[in-house]
Amino acid sequence: MSRMGLSQGEILALWAVLGVAILGLLYAVYLARQILSKDKGTPEMQLVWQDIKAGAQAYLRTQFRSLLPLMGILFLLLGLSVLVVPVSPEAVETFCRVPEGLSRQELMQYACSNATWWIAAGRAFSFLLGASFSFAVGYFGMLMAVEGNVRVASAARRSFSEALTIAYRSGTITGMLTVGLGLLGGTIIFMIYGKSAPDALLGFGFGGSLIALFMRVGGGIFTKAADVGADLVGKVEAGLEEDDPRNAAVIADLVGDNVGDCAGMAADVFESFEVTIVSALILGIAITAQTGVLKWILFPLFVRAVGVISSIIGTYLVRTDDEKRDAMGAINFGYYASAVISVLGFGLVSYLYMGGDWRPFGATVAGVVLAIAIEKLTEYFTGTEHSPVQDIADSTRYGAATTILSGLAEGYESTVWQALVIALSIGVAIFLFHGEPYVYILYAVAMTGIGMLTMTGNNVSMDSFGPIADNAGGIAELAGLEEEAIKVLDELDAVGNTTKAITKGVAIASAVIAAVSLFGSFFTDTNLVLERLGKPLLESINVADPLIFIGLLVGGTIPWLFGGLMIRAVSRAAGEMIAEVRRQFRIPGLMEGRVKPDYARAVEISTQAAQKELLPLGVMAITVPIIVGLLLRAEALGAFLAGLIVSGQLLAVFMANSGGAWDNAKKLIEDGLHGGKGSEAHKAGVVGDTVGDPLKDTAGPAMNPMIKVINLVALIIAPMIVRFDRLTPPVLLFLLILLAAFIWALRISKRPVRYDVEE
Amino acid sequence: MSRMGLSQGEILALWAVLGVAILGLLYAVYLARQILSKDKGTPEMQLVWQDIKAGAQAYLRTQFRSLLPLMGILFLLLGLSVLVVPVSPEAVETFCRVPEGLSRQELMQYACSNATWWIAAGRAFSFLLGASFSFAVGYFGMLMAVEGNVRVASAARRSFSEALTIAYRSGTITGMLTVGLGLLGGTIIFMIYGKSAPDALLGFGFGGSLIALFMRVGGGIFTKAADVGADLVGKVEAGLEEDDPRNAAVIADLVGDNVGDCAGMAADVFESFEVTIVSALILGIAITAQTGVLKWILFPLFVRAVGVISSIIGTYLVRTDDEKRDAMGAINFGYYASAVISVLGFGLVSYLYMGGDWRPFGATVAGVVLAIAIEKLTEYFTGTEHSPVQDIADSTRYGAATTILSGLAEGYESTVWQALVIALSIGVAIFLFHGEPYVYILYAVAMTGIGMLTMTGNNVSMDSFGPIADNAGGIAELAGLEEEAIKVLDELDAVGNTTKAITKGVAIASAVIAAVSLFGSFFTDTNLVLERLGKPLLESINVADPLIFIGLLVGGTIPWLFGGLMIRAVSRAAGEMIAEVRRQFRIPGLMEGRVKPDYARAVEISTQAAQKELLPLGVMAITVPIIVGLLLRAEALGAFLAGLIVSGQLLAVFMANSGGAWDNAKKLIEDGLHGGKGSEAHKAGVVGDTVGDPLKDTAGPAMNPMIKVINLVALIIAPMIVRFDRLTPPVLLFLLILLAAFIWALRISKRPVRYDVEE
Repeated sequence: MSRMGLSQGEILALWAVLGVAILGLLYAVYLARQILSKDKGTPEMQLVWQDIKAGAQAYLRTQFRSLLPLMGILFLLLGLSVLVVPVSPEAVETFCRVPEGLSRQELMQYACSNATWWIAAGRAFSFLLGASFSFAVGYFGMLMAVEGNVRVASAARRSFSEALTIAYRSGTITGMLTVGLGLLGGTIIFMIYGKSAPDALLGFGFGGSLIALFMRVGGGIFTKAADVGADLVGKVEAGLEEDDPRNAAVIADLVGDNVGDCAGMAADVFESFEVTIVSALILGIAITAQTGVLKWILFPLFVRAVGVISSIIGTYLVRTDDEKRDAMGAINFGYYASAVISVLGFGLVSYLYMGGDWRPFGATVAGVVLAIAIEKLTEYFTGTEHSPVQDIADSTRYGAATTILSGLAEGYESTVWQALVIALSIGVAIFLFHGEPYVYILYAVAMTGIGMLTMTGNNVSMDSFGPIADNAGGIAELAGLEEEAIKVLDELDAVGNTTKAITKGVAIASAVIAAVSLFGSFFTDTNLVLERLGKPLLESINVADPLIFIGLLVGGTIPWLFGGLMIRAVSRAAGEMIAEVRRQFRIPGLMEGRVKPDYARAVEISTQAAQKELLPLGVMAITVPIIVGLLLRAEALGAFLAGLIVSGQLLAVFMANSGGAWDNAKKLIEDGLHGGKGSEAHKAGVVGDTVGDPLKDTAGPAMNPMIKVINLVALIIAPMIVRFDRLTPPVLLFLLILLAAFIWALRISKRPVRYDVEE
Repeated sequence: MSRMGLSQGEILALWAVLGVAILGLLYAVYLARQILSKDKGTPEMQLVWQDIKAGAQAYLRTQFRSLLPLMGILFLLLGLSVLVVPVSPEAVETFCRVPEGLSRQELMQYACSNATWWIAAGRAFSFLLGASFSFAVGYFGMLMAVEGNVRVASAARRSFSEALTIAYRSGTITGMLTVGLGLLGGTIIFMIYGKSAPDALLGFGFGGSLIALFMRVGGGIFTKAADVGADLVGKVEAGLEEDDPRNAAVIADLVGDNVGDCAGMAADVFESFEVTIVSALILGIAITAQTGVLKWILFPLFVRAVGVISSIIGTYLVRTDDEKRDAMGAINFGYYASAVISVLGFGLVSYLYMGGDWRPFGATVAGVVLAIAIEKLTEYFTGTEHSPVQDIADSTRYGAATTILSGLAEGYESTVWQALVIALSIGVAIFLFHGEPYVYILYAVAMTGIGMLTMTGNNVSMDSFGPIADNAGGIAELAGLEEEAIKVLDELDAVGNTTKAITKGVAIASAVIAAVSLFGSFFTDTNLVLERLGKPLLESINVADPLIFIGLLVGGTIPWLFGGLMIRAVSRAAGEMIAEVRRQFRIPGLMEGRVKPDYARAVEISTQAAQKELLPLGVMAITVPIIVGLLLRAEALGAFLAGLIVSGQLLAVFMANSGGAWDNAKKLIEDGLHGGKGSEAHKAGVVGDTVGDPLKDTAGPAMNPMIKVINLVALIIAPMIVRFDRLTPPVLLFLLILLAAFIWALRISKRPVRYDVEE
């Protein structure tokens, strides 16, 4: 670190950033204590709640155990990778006592075991750090959501405003964990590794993304298997209401909201938050290497620190009184307060530190504006007040087919507008750094991503708020609470649906922005390695070259493959759940309410089903970029990433928006449109909602971490690919092993869906 | 031409190619006379048939009239484009009396009005030629299909084999028109323009693609509006059977099969056939310019001529006897016979003419093999004998939602495999010309496309066979023919469904191959213009550059935009049809069969609805590449094309295969699976089929010509874009006009869908 030439003020400021990260975590602890001090309501409520809590914890414990071996293998491989890919001259400079005045060329030849050990440890332990932070955010976020929901249900019996505050603050805990740990990890790695940080940062990002992928896929499959299973047998076949206690899958469904919408979402957003800082730091280090000016590295950290502070203030401001009962207004007020404070803070940092260079400031502010623009866009395409959802609701009158078709049409179109907003945000970066080398523009793109995620604290609060309110409603229903309390919770639930939908758009957009800047680092990073190896540099990723075009085309297919496989995985898991619920319905006395169903068994089925699907998808995501890289080489691998990002962004937005729109179209009908509940239009609306569920809650959200995992694997593997530019027997053997692993995983993921139907 | 240095043998061979093209057309005339000599059956049949014929002709007449103004404007603009883009030195060499021994540089400075006039005329008239050939193929193809269908119905009363022969040969007429006119146009343009042909060839391709886009979109909307309208009101609401004469939309439905599946398909395949020869010739001319060796230009023409001959033989061989009744076997025999004859012919041409260079031969044979591979793949994903369709059929037992989800999953996955086959075919081209400059590899890709389309004569016959058999069945039903005849026609219809589905995959794959080689020409072509203007050449289309990445991203959105808008257009047109059929049901006496419905009015509605949607979509396809090019410049426009091709291919295959799979899953149930017709599973199957219809018959097929129109506009506009590299006031004004046109078109395409429902 000392070699980086930080001024005393800068060193102090770095420690201050660390302090802010810890402040965010302390605020989370403070909120957690506040929530835990609230009462848990009646014994009936606590009984229901204990089932949910046990199920949720059991799920994450199982998940943790089933991932351990893979994480261990990857930990070892990352550490051993120093045997194949030599450490960077920056690492040598940082960790070896090199004679003064060595040229860069000489540094590359210089080897010292000290640097090798530090980098090996950095790659491996940063990976573990990223993975455990991601898991921790998911785990504690979910735990606090579970602790929150019974207390929200209890508070709803007393006061609307208290219920709102508890629900929102339970979500804020996750938000604060996300921003606190995200900032902490990046800052610590930078403080230890200085300009040799990129290796460790990639490991950090990879760990976080991989866990996020598993949490998203696992949580998504769990929650939709339970949801679809509960609905298809319970509602459709047996004619029961939602949350009927005789339905064995009902607790699994409530658990699913927590593991999917809380734990999965939290890990996913953490990953975007982490990856944007990773790519900003890597690009900042690259610029600093050329210019010697350190501000490019520190600015993103300062901006993030400002974001943490503004999130604390903004989320704290969310409150309403029992007369106005304006939950949406309160949440929005906090959101915009955070936005304004952030922009002011960015301005202050730029004024004090950036020495009159307002361009990075411009990029971050553009990010804030674009986050708001995307929320508006998502609200337009998925909100009940606008024509897309209303059109879908109208089309339900002609049955399920027209409902699906209009949802497809709206969803397809919505992807176009979101992509244009992302294109615009890249355009702003180009405009700001017009005439500078690419790396500045990529840096600006990364800063736009950081700006977009400034309000992450608020976004996660809003996002968790939905499932917490939903769960509270479920508990109230199952425990038979008063009408008034249920009404309060219904209101909160409706608000939660809206906040959940609008924050999803930002999650996808920021993921794409992060992927674009990562993709940019792929290019600069690969060239650094090529330079180190003394090989000719990559000049471009030229898609007019047929081989490179193949890379682009193959990259474009990956999201479709994963999308198809994930839909299939949900159907397969739902099939198992259906068989179980059916079996329990046949238990004598259960339908009459005399025998309690075996809720734990349904939770167990969802848990096991999710586990079975996780590993193959993870193996495919890890192996595919290595296979493509070894077969088609580094330049085509770059095009592969480009195709992956473009195709993944379009498919993810389509899935999220169509799913959200179908969901809300059904809600419109349930609120009395076109005949209301039980009408033919409602049946068509339910079909749309059921189709949309796995799209918007499993396949779509899993696209973000999937894109990033593949990107990061490509970045990590690029040095090896440029090193092994011939298929020598050992490389060929490695390739064959990877291909075998991929095919094994694909075969498992393609197991047929078994429907247990008696005809 | 004399300046090209063709040998006497080569000149003779060129005339022989022209002769083969005319032979193909004469064979079409011969078949037409044979068909027309057959009897048209009972007066009742002729009455029904006259309604269909009148409707089909009226539709294409209206279409023709509504496209005339746009074609006129484009004709003028293409002619006037010489004022902006100077003619090539090749044109000067070909059409001016230049002093001997001028350098290339001097030729670029040399101007003569002769060359300017020839090129102006070439751009404009070739466009007209392409457009009229495309329209002619569609028009006559449809006409012969209509003439065929009543005769097939009549023959079915006598003999299975006669009915098969008539149906297949009616389709073969279209096939022969496609290959004959495609070869004729390319050969004539080359014979007139020699090495200055690229300008005229682009016009030829553009005319054909634009008409194909209109025929596909118009035909697709017509047929699905009628189909969905007839089904939703007739079958679902009124409980009538398919083809019930009291349903006013029933004739429109039959007309729709002709305008969509015959005319639209024929124009589309013609366009692929034409564009592959256009790109092979342009690339061949580019190679010849570098090497002076003419074989690169003539080889594709010879290969095409071989294909015409083998198609004539192969299609003639299709026959069965009344005992075996093996229609599928007969059709396959003809297909494989053509394939074998083609490969042998290619070998002969290569041996005699290519002087031991077997690489182009390898590329064409790879095309033949890949065409067969893609047919197998499509058959796997959409055929009733394989697990994807069977899985979808199984999922119908859980209702419409699981039916849709399993169709989505299968469709998503199928795109991956088809893309991999296309990637493999590009890989073969790279392998064959390993170490040569890009232009050879692109040439090999184009030759693979030509190989893939060698069996176009057979493919079009197989493709037209479906709607002809379907229409014959409809006529038999409406005219109340004997059970035995209806059974024969049902058998033929089932075979037609299979052949139609499997040829669709080849159409998309060859379109993508053609688009890839066109995209390659974009690069070489733009550089030719840059050289002419004395500007620095494009070195790559570097997607690692953020601005270029924006192009890629925006290009990726276009198929989603068109897909969404086309689904919406079908729904809107179906809504109008539904209102009309409802209105007619209320006419006293109609439901009792005493009053004949006003079929012409329903045809009129479909016709008008299709017209309204055509122009805006066409305007968007033409303006969008120009807008992108002017805003983001040539390199990003190249990336835009790459994004468009990748995204369009994935979406098109998904739409075609999901739609086909849903259709066949429903058929499986109608054949008795899971309770057969009327069961709950059947209802779910119908929902899947209805969702799939606009995907597989409107939006999906329209992707091919849409991709090519945009590609060709980009190629044509590239010289202007590189010339106007600043947004000067006139260029800005032009840009604003285009933007206004685009927004106008988008607003029209986004008109809401009106459902006329009484609640």
